[in-house]
Amino acid sequence: MSLATNEDFQGVASIPTGLRTVQLKAPYLIYFGDVRDKGHAKTGLGLIQWRREHCAGQLRGQGCQVDGGLPDMTISQAVAAGVGSIVIGVASEGGTIPKAWINDLAQAARAGLNVVSGMHVRLADFPEIQLAARASGARLLDIRTPPRSIPVGTGEKRSGRRLLTVGTDCAVGKKYTALALEREMRARGMDADFRATGQTGIMIAGTGIPLDCVVSDFLSGAAELLSPAASPDHWDVIEGQGSLSHPSFAGVSLGLLHGAQPDALVLCHDPSRDYLLGAGAGRKFPVLPVSESIEQCLTFARRVNPEARFVGVAINTSALPDDDKAALVDRYERETGLPVVDPIKDGTARIIDRLLGE
Amino acid sequence: MSLATNEDFQGVASIPTGLRTVQLKAPYLIYFGDVRDKGHAKTGLGLIQWRREHCAGQLRGQGCQVDGGLPDMTISQAVAAGVGSIVIGVASEGGTIPKAWINDLAQAARAGLNVVSGMHVRLADFPEIQLAARASGARLLDIRTPPRSIPVGTGEKRSGRRLLTVGTDCAVGKKYTALALEREMRARGMDADFRATGQTGIMIAGTGIPLDCVVSDFLSGAAELLSPAASPDHWDVIEGQGSLSHPSFAGVSLGLLHGAQPDALVLCHDPSRDYLLGAGAGRKFPVLPVSESIEQCLTFARRVNPEARFVGVAINTSALPDDDKAALVDRYERETGLPVVDPIKDGTARIIDRLLGE
Repeated sequence: MSLATNEDFQGVASIPTGLRTVQLKAPYLIYFGDVRDKGHAKTGLGLIQWRREHCAGQLRGQGCQVDGGLPDMTISQAVAAGVGSIVIGVASEGGTIPKAWINDLAQAARAGLNVVSGMHVRLADFPEIQLAARASGARLLDIRTPPRSIPVGTGEKRSGRRLLTVGTDCAVGKKYTALALEREMRARGMDADFRATGQTGIMIAGTGIPLDCVVSDFLSGAAELLSPAASPDHWDVIEGQGSLSHPSFAGVSLGLLHGAQPDALVLCHDPSRDYLLGAGAGRKFPVLPVSESIEQCLTFARRVNPEARFVGVAINTSALPDDDKAALVDRYERETGLPVVDPIKDGTARIIDRLLGE
Repeated sequence: MSLATNEDFQGVASIPTGLRTVQLKAPYLIYFGDVRDKGHAKTGLGLIQWRREHCAGQLRGQGCQVDGGLPDMTISQAVAAGVGSIVIGVASEGGTIPKAWINDLAQAARAGLNVVSGMHVRLADFPEIQLAARASGARLLDIRTPPRSIPVGTGEKRSGRRLLTVGTDCAVGKKYTALALEREMRARGMDADFRATGQTGIMIAGTGIPLDCVVSDFLSGAAELLSPAASPDHWDVIEGQGSLSHPSFAGVSLGLLHGAQPDALVLCHDPSRDYLLGAGAGRKFPVLPVSESIEQCLTFARRVNPEARFVGVAINTSALPDDDKAALVDRYERETGLPVVDPIKDGTARIIDRLLGE
């Protein structure tokens, strides 16, 4: 049977993405628009966290309630400071560009800054932005354009080893944890590569596949393409997406889980969150208990890899006093039998110990 | 938060599809190409089964091993017989058009027949076909083009009631069962609509959303759009896709399950099949036991609709003697506590009885 591709469902790619290298012109001005919470500013905050050396400043519009800790700059100041690109630092669920931002982005393009977007919509579809870029010669870079030839997933076994971060919700640290695990692995001399599946991860890594904009028939095929066969000791550390229990995005999570065929999984969880982020305005969905999430993921992971196992839990305890954090870690460790860490405060060494120790 | 759309990920639609009515010019010549098994000929066979009155003939190429029971016709004979459209009757996993078919389709277009395709690739992307259609004025109709504005799923409760067919595999009768259930409901005076999610269903119903080519972030949103709020007694009978246990397509199945928010589910199963159809050439995946499939679907269905329940199992017993069929039905009924029917031999009355009787 011939392999099919999603070639005809992609818009025109502004830049080569997919498994090819994305080249962003540094330094960056991070654009936060009118974002009100850190969860939806994760693109900008993640880029600042992992590529601080490339971030010159931030531009915050009216109503913005997020501070990335960079110097505030106007577009003129950014130009004077030698900024190369304005990067949209806000990730809304669906990736639209609100009208309020268009003026700012057009002004930046007119001033010669490249515009980098991880939104679902394409920059070139906003005539004000496109005309401004054309006038100055600035480039419009859409990170969220998947590669043009993705096969249907086969479920066939590939050589090499894979770790996938999964979550009890969106925006619970799946990308951060994967990046921290890759860093820890490399520090120990392990052969490891972070595999980005979302716009921020792709901006940080310079490569990856934006899974949430792959045509759905090719989801697991995209995950297979993202982490191809490798040498037996090589680890792909794959950035998870969404959550199997999130009614808006679980399809993406399951396609990724099946295609990744993980040998090891790490669950990411925000203990301060009682209800899912971003699902139904009029309806609340409780976050599943950690142990239930683990069981759910394992059932599906073992369908494609009978050896799949969890090796740790990563929690976000930024809002907790130290004593409360210790009690929580203790509780989750008893519940799951796994090492539980806050990757920001504790690092991920205990998870890698578990991965290697068994 | 503003609703996002997948507007920018669709190709140019040759015809209005989505929730608008698709108009196909009858009668049809069903094109079977070189297909070797009925599973992959389900588009053509389904159209013949449910719209026999619109099907004038079939065109089978070299190596074709499927017979739809229609008169064999060449393209010249079809033109002489007043055929309006050639309909590609073959559904490959990914929806590609092999080179061997291009000549036939171009010849049909040149002879003035409209060409109807449910493939992922667009007809207009094959220059031979496009030029032939342009010369004769024939139309190229791509059924598998989703609507241009799909929101992210919200998980919010909608009025009206919904039944979803799910499966232990691809091609186990989910569309057939849904159509048979709609027919039975209407025969009883119930207010019911079949909701098509795949190319054949859309061809039969004249409306629907091709879920497998929706951008994955919008999967559950597409399912919500497909079965909008309705009057309290109205039933949407939604055609399922794939299987939660199929490593190639489970993402689509889960997005549909979450977006459909079914009140009632019917499991479709082929007892003669030990391994999944169409997964990994080099690897076999066992079909899950019926009761395990039911449990798996219920877990996810109840996430969005706590009242979700199974009301029946539909099995394909075409290959079995009557005695064996009776034993099998008995076994599954004891295993599941549900009415088990072969919709082709038995109809679906017992499932509707269960639906209404509790």
